[in-house]
Amino acid sequence: MPAEPSQNWLDQVRWDAQGLVPAIAQEAGSGDVLMLAWMNREALEKTATLGRAVYFSRSRGKLWFKGEESGHVQTVHEIRLDCDADVVLLRVTQQGHEPAIACHTGRHSCFFSVLQDGQWRARDPVLKDPASIYN
Amino acid sequence: MPAEPSQNWLDQVRWDAQGLVPAIAQEAGSGDVLMLAWMNREALEKTATLGRAVYFSRSRGKLWFKGEESGHVQTVHEIRLDCDADVVLLRVTQQGHEPAIACHTGRHSCFFSVLQDGQWRARDPVLKDPASIYN
Repeated sequence: MPAEPSQNWLDQVRWDAQGLVPAIAQEAGSGDVLMLAWMNREALEKTATLGRAVYFSRSRGKLWFKGEESGHVQTVHEIRLDCDADVVLLRVTQQGHEPAIACHTGRHSCFFSVLQDGQWRARDPVLKDPASIYN
Repeated sequence: MPAEPSQNWLDQVRWDAQGLVPAIAQEAGSGDVLMLAWMNREALEKTATLGRAVYFSRSRGKLWFKGEESGHVQTVHEIRLDCDADVVLLRVTQQGHEPAIACHTGRHSCFFSVLQDGQWRARDPVLKDPASIYN
C-alpha cells in the first residue's frame, strides 16, 4: 500500500536509531544561529503544519512546542534538509521579546560561550531574567 | 590527579553515549549555515589547535580533516558551545573554491533542499562537478 503523498517528505528524512534528527534554528533576519534541538517525525510534521517550531524534548520524552512556557515562539519561514537527509535547518523569526530571546538562560542565542585562551567564556548578555521567563 | 588546565574545556563538553557532539559550521562572512557534522574529543581538540575544522566521520569511524580530499578546508575563526554544552558552533571561512563550496555535492551549503508543497526541492546550484572535486 503506497504511503499518502503528504507523508513522503517525512519518509525521506533519515531518522536516527531513536527516531530523531537534529534541527538548527537560524534567525531569518540576522542569520544568527539561535539553537539546536531535536525533532521526531511528529515534531517535524507539526512544525510544517503549524508554521512554528515544534521539537522533541529528549529529557522530557515528549513534544516541545517551543515557547509554550516562555512565550518565545519561533515562527518558521522555511524548512531545509541537508545532503544526507539527516539534519534539518529552520529559518525562523524568534517571537516574544525584543531583542529576541531563544535561550532559556534569557540570552539571544544558546551559543553564548566562546572558546578563548583554553576556556569557555560567556559572552552575550542576559536580556531577561530567566526567573521572570518561566513561572 | 588533576587534569591539565588545557584539557578542562574539553571535559566541559557533554559528549553523547558515542563520545560525539554535533558541530555546526557557519560561514563567518555571510552567516550561511554550511553543514553539520560530528566531533569527538580529538576532533574538537585538533580543530582548536589547528584552526581548521576537523570532524569525526561516523561512516568511516575516524577523524575527518575537512578538505583533505576536496581541498575545501574550513578555516575556523571562533568556536562556540551552547547552553547545554552539547552542541558546537564554528564560525568558518570556507576555502578552496570561489564561490565557496562546503558540500560534497559541489554546492555552497549542504542545506540545499527546501520543503515546498510537501516535497523536498533542490534549490541551490551545483558550483562544481563533484566528479572533478574528488579524484
